[in-house]
Amino acid sequence: MKNFPGTPGTLLGLALRMSQFIFAAGSIAAMATTPSFFNFTAFCYLIASMGLQFIWSFVLASMDAYALARNKVLHNPVLVSLLVVGDWVTAILSLAAASSSAGITVLYFHDLGHCQFREECQKYQISVALAYLGWIPISISSLIMLWLLAAG
Amino acid sequence: MKNFPGTPGTLLGLALRMSQFIFAAGSIAAMATTPSFFNFTAFCYLIASMGLQFIWSFVLASMDAYALARNKVLHNPVLVSLLVVGDWVTAILSLAAASSSAGITVLYFHDLGHCQFREECQKYQISVALAYLGWIPISISSLIMLWLLAAG
Repeated sequence: MKNFPGTPGTLLGLALRMSQFIFAAGSIAAMATTPSFFNFTAFCYLIASMGLQFIWSFVLASMDAYALARNKVLHNPVLVSLLVVGDWVTAILSLAAASSSAGITVLYFHDLGHCQFREECQKYQISVALAYLGWIPISISSLIMLWLLAAG
Repeated sequence: MKNFPGTPGTLLGLALRMSQFIFAAGSIAAMATTPSFFNFTAFCYLIASMGLQFIWSFVLASMDAYALARNKVLHNPVLVSLLVVGDWVTAILSLAAASSSAGITVLYFHDLGHCQFREECQKYQISVALAYLGWIPISISSLIMLWLLAAG
């Protein structure tokens, strides 16, 4: 296994994980504080998917922080295989959730000409934007993990 | 570079490419024959994305068929790098397009209780289902290409 920035137990790896759970938490906070999100299946799915991303990334960020503090290298092949599967599932679910919510947001803002839910509308947009921002670091992590597994 | 099933110029590679462009063509056909798809940004985006997937996969299927007929091995590193980038971009756009259209389809069928566009509704559902089915082989191709690049 090769040791390059972004792999588990490196500073870039920790930064990627932290940005993942921060964006996921922001997306959940923006969506869950609207009073009508539960009327939309896509928005409920977005919260579920961001919840999964938050838990997954938070656990891995803690593991990275521990490895950095103790100066350990986390390149166990079994661990990397597990991370590849988990990262890919999380990244695909996040992109699908963000896109389905974006589809509905665009429908209300653009196609129907206006959004009748007043200030909630802005929160929907913020939540979708944060979900997409959170998807960028998790897709980078997924690629790094797959590369690590293939090159190992 | 390793030679395993699914890489360019193999029978499985050709089968994957063919299923990609067949599903993309089916999805476009189902969506473009509805008279009101242009009112929905997400549905227009689905057609654009499936169009890209159709062209991309059709060109690569022709290349695979040529390589199979002439018994050539297409493992040029520059070609594989190009295929990795193209496959990933196409796969991500297809998943995003399928999910945003699925979000709107679920909104009309489930959240709003009924779909007021009569027989078009079924076509929307078929188009989204075919887009997801087309995403499966292109994501498999993407993984195989990245693996080939990393292992090469």
